[in-house]
Amino acid sequence: MPRLVMKFGGTSVAGVARIRHVASLVKREVDRGHEVAVVVSAMSGETNKLIALAREMSPLHDAREYDAIASTGENVTAGLLAIALDAIGVPARSWAGWQIPIRTDGIHGSARITDIETDLLCARMAQGQVAVIAGFQGISPENRISTLGRGGSDTSAVAIAAAIGAIRCDIYTDVDGVYTTDPRIVEKAQKIEKISYEEMLEMASLGAKVLQTRSVELAMVHRVPTQVLSSFTDAPGTLVCDEDEIMEKRLVSGIAYSRDEAKITLVKVADQPGVAAAIFGPLADAGINVDMIVQNVSEDGKFTDMTFTVGRADLDRALKVIEENKAAIRHQRVVSDANVSKVSVVGVGMRTHAGVAQLMFKTLAEKGINIQVISTSEIKVSVLIAADYTELAVRALHTAYGLDGP
Amino acid sequence: MPRLVMKFGGTSVAGVARIRHVASLVKREVDRGHEVAVVVSAMSGETNKLIALAREMSPLHDAREYDAIASTGENVTAGLLAIALDAIGVPARSWAGWQIPIRTDGIHGSARITDIETDLLCARMAQGQVAVIAGFQGISPENRISTLGRGGSDTSAVAIAAAIGAIRCDIYTDVDGVYTTDPRIVEKAQKIEKISYEEMLEMASLGAKVLQTRSVELAMVHRVPTQVLSSFTDAPGTLVCDEDEIMEKRLVSGIAYSRDEAKITLVKVADQPGVAAAIFGPLADAGINVDMIVQNVSEDGKFTDMTFTVGRADLDRALKVIEENKAAIRHQRVVSDANVSKVSVVGVGMRTHAGVAQLMFKTLAEKGINIQVISTSEIKVSVLIAADYTELAVRALHTAYGLDGP
Repeated sequence: MPRLVMKFGGTSVAGVARIRHVASLVKREVDRGHEVAVVVSAMSGETNKLIALAREMSPLHDAREYDAIASTGENVTAGLLAIALDAIGVPARSWAGWQIPIRTDGIHGSARITDIETDLLCARMAQGQVAVIAGFQGISPENRISTLGRGGSDTSAVAIAAAIGAIRCDIYTDVDGVYTTDPRIVEKAQKIEKISYEEMLEMASLGAKVLQTRSVELAMVHRVPTQVLSSFTDAPGTLVCDEDEIMEKRLVSGIAYSRDEAKITLVKVADQPGVAAAIFGPLADAGINVDMIVQNVSEDGKFTDMTFTVGRADLDRALKVIEENKAAIRHQRVVSDANVSKVSVVGVGMRTHAGVAQLMFKTLAEKGINIQVISTSEIKVSVLIAADYTELAVRALHTAYGLDGP
Repeated sequence: MPRLVMKFGGTSVAGVARIRHVASLVKREVDRGHEVAVVVSAMSGETNKLIALAREMSPLHDAREYDAIASTGENVTAGLLAIALDAIGVPARSWAGWQIPIRTDGIHGSARITDIETDLLCARMAQGQVAVIAGFQGISPENRISTLGRGGSDTSAVAIAAAIGAIRCDIYTDVDGVYTTDPRIVEKAQKIEKISYEEMLEMASLGAKVLQTRSVELAMVHRVPTQVLSSFTDAPGTLVCDEDEIMEKRLVSGIAYSRDEAKITLVKVADQPGVAAAIFGPLADAGINVDMIVQNVSEDGKFTDMTFTVGRADLDRALKVIEENKAAIRHQRVVSDANVSKVSVVGVGMRTHAGVAQLMFKTLAEKGINIQVISTSEIKVSVLIAADYTELAVRALHTAYGLDGP
């Protein structure tokens, strides 16, 4: 029988009544002839409560203890859902990460799955037992509980789907799919029926919060068709799938934005080999992720300005690292701005169509929005603008690329 | 270095501040030169909350799922205490039952510990790392999480103390020791400095709620000196130890009582072989524990009355079982009374001193209290009386046996 993975997020399992409803959704797929593995998150709010306890105890806590604490919410949900399924006549059992086991590396707090044992799991599923799996967790090489980072249950679900050869991974959440942009900003945003892995990956990493970026990466690598849909409505969701399976391709699939950026400009750094390494080496050593980087052409061949962006939460730390390495970088001064946002247009159509970026620049210019930094990839163009213009830019671009719905 | 087990109950770890205080108590023992293993309960109220969720989901839930859910509170406390210890410079790590592992039988919800692996645990302790162990839990032969029943963390602690050869097991709770009787009833109740395993076992099973009965059994079998003390005061507690180590022996060590009893009398059952089996066989099959049993001498050699007690919570079920087996028992009628209580005097001195029971009967008679059923063992005498007289009886006996403090 075809195997199916269903994943339910925190709001979908918040309370006994909602877990009962989830059980009915699982039963429907069992009745349709699927062998089902369900991955669950902690009940809404539980993980935050646990993390707050750990932080209150000590801000500098051991990540292994953080994981032991933060992972317990998922075990509770898994047990409750197994009970709910049994109660409606669907044989089920809960699985903790260590029972399967789901093996990870030793990077506690943001571990990566290295291996999933599937023999026992698949044998039980073949006997008609629904596997209810605690998401977000695995075990490290040292036999300690590891967690996969916030939103990690999406990654658990896709990894399990890949490991057991599921026909699809259904991610149930509190929105009913992936939209052309954030519907809270653009009323005419439309639900996307199908989107390619590559586009979804850009959307996720550029700020669309529907799926965890790593889960999309995994789905892409293992070609796991992944559906995003709501546990609260019966509406069809969005299928993340192979580009080839999407008949009607749009030039641009969506507009993403992120307010979590901050811009740093180093004024008058020496225009000579090694200066980029002097700047970005220490930042990387400090675990600070640098996103967009622009180096102006040097006018006099001696000095140049270097502009780049970091996560807003990392800004203070980044400035401190630069200050500490001033002797090596030898910049004249530093200018930083946390009041910026990154707006991106994403679409596989860009590969073959010229003029996509040009339309973006033109549209923003018409609205009087100044572009501070530009970065491009094969299937997206991102610009950094003043944060105040975010909504205006997103709405204008949504219209310009013909994404507005009725 | 000598090994010590410290156990902290739910009220002792209720919240971040109290867990920090527990960490300071652990540090004190580390500084005194002990290798310490700490066993923790869930924070006060957490386990009840989890059990309520499981019951709300389905009253007839799978015991394995109940265990998976109910066991998570201890993992949270263990992680938090490990963080608290690290924060004050005491190396520590948390251990879940499956990580040690603590192996149990497969009786989920009230599992018994069958084996504890100590190699890894002791190696870490020898390196100076405090082992913070989640109480109340182990793993079953099927690799599922099992729990040891309410109050099971006491049992975890004593079992671990026995397994690692600890010099003592300190049970920290919200009372500062074992008293000659319940101080809420008798103001002049005195804290007992030392009590033998055998007496403590009687006291625990007769209603004193300081220690779980099974933990005392284990302490007795493995001769683990077990100290009951408060985490809120610095007062010395009560040491449960070998009789030989108690210099000053009292005739009677304490007065226990329990209101959780109910009395059943089968009137006019045939006075012939096999009748007891006909009554108590079906009750045992139904999992109903029968405590005191009295069979009157038959006057005519044909019929007799059979009186026994069961837990009050089991009364309705017991009456149903008797009704269902009426044809085999052939009693004339059934009389039951839930309004009774059991009062007991406990003391190893009884073995060698006559007249202990006689003083009990005389004291109760003087207060006009009717004795309904009597049962005795080597070191205790229990009587069943009308529940209304409980406090009066306990106070009178406490005075009569010279237990009143200043």
